[in-house]
Amino acid sequence: LEIVFLLTGKTDSSEIENLMNQFEKRLKHYVRFQTIEIKQIKLKSSDKSLLLLAERDLQLKAIQDSDFLILLDENGSYWTSRGFSDQLQKWMNMGPKRLVFLVGGAFGFHEAVRNRSQASLSLSKMTFSHQIIRPIFLEQLYRAFTILKNEPYHND
Amino acid sequence: LEIVFLLTGKTDSSEIENLMNQFEKRLKHYVRFQTIEIKQIKLKSSDKSLLLLAERDLQLKAIQDSDFLILLDENGSYWTSRGFSDQLQKWMNMGPKRLVFLVGGAFGFHEAVRNRSQASLSLSKMTFSHQIIRPIFLEQLYRAFTILKNEPYHND
Repeated sequence: LEIVFLLTGKTDSSEIENLMNQFEKRLKHYVRFQTIEIKQIKLKSSDKSLLLLAERDLQLKAIQDSDFLILLDENGSYWTSRGFSDQLQKWMNMGPKRLVFLVGGAFGFHEAVRNRSQASLSLSKMTFSHQIIRPIFLEQLYRAFTILKNEPYHND
Repeated sequence: LEIVFLLTGKTDSSEIENLMNQFEKRLKHYVRFQTIEIKQIKLKSSDKSLLLLAERDLQLKAIQDSDFLILLDENGSYWTSRGFSDQLQKWMNMGPKRLVFLVGGAFGFHEAVRNRSQASLSLSKMTFSHQIIRPIFLEQLYRAFTILKNEPYHND
């Protein structure tokens, strides 16, 4: 099993990148893990649907047929940290070669990407920027593994 | 009106501090705003209730009688970003001199602090570290003001 954190567009600040690196380092004690950034698309027009189409193509190209794909999506399911750790364990138990968590661009996902996905996860009822969500999610993933391993990080 | 972001304990990484500074700078275009850090308490024992007591004393000392106090609390109310902006407007309309958003320490709040508060806000069903919650909340506060001013930052 490998967990892949698939990101649409570059991480735009060194602070976010450094926070991500800190949690990545900790995560790698528990699981094979890599972050993949899909290259940033810049269109001349500000046409939202054209952007989603272009992002879709790059996203689907980065996803393998055997991947179990989970979208980080405002309209996804809500879990507590403990509930998410249970769910993560279930996904891992299904034995996929890769568990891919995908963060979309500023306007979310194209329909075809939604259809390809097996699950979706919302971190909050609030909308977080697609940048700040990156370290937040990695902290949750790290927290989930500490819960599964009964390690003293999470306080209920 | 002034918005005060009252934090229990130091911000422990320069990345988090830099992210906070970025959102603070943007926030100050909309509202008088300051962050206050209550000094970090270090006890020799790891007694959770003693820590909460010591934090309580410092927190209540930093709060003024006329403050409208909102706790950032896992068990608080959930809003969408748009819902939170409406709620923020209501709180501001009540005309308090200061609107204080308080982040607790690693173990949450003492009962007396809960009793002093007028409202509580949860950013997620998931538990975020009391460090990473700092820039996340500032982004939400900034987002709320852009919604209230009809500025193009938030996409529903």
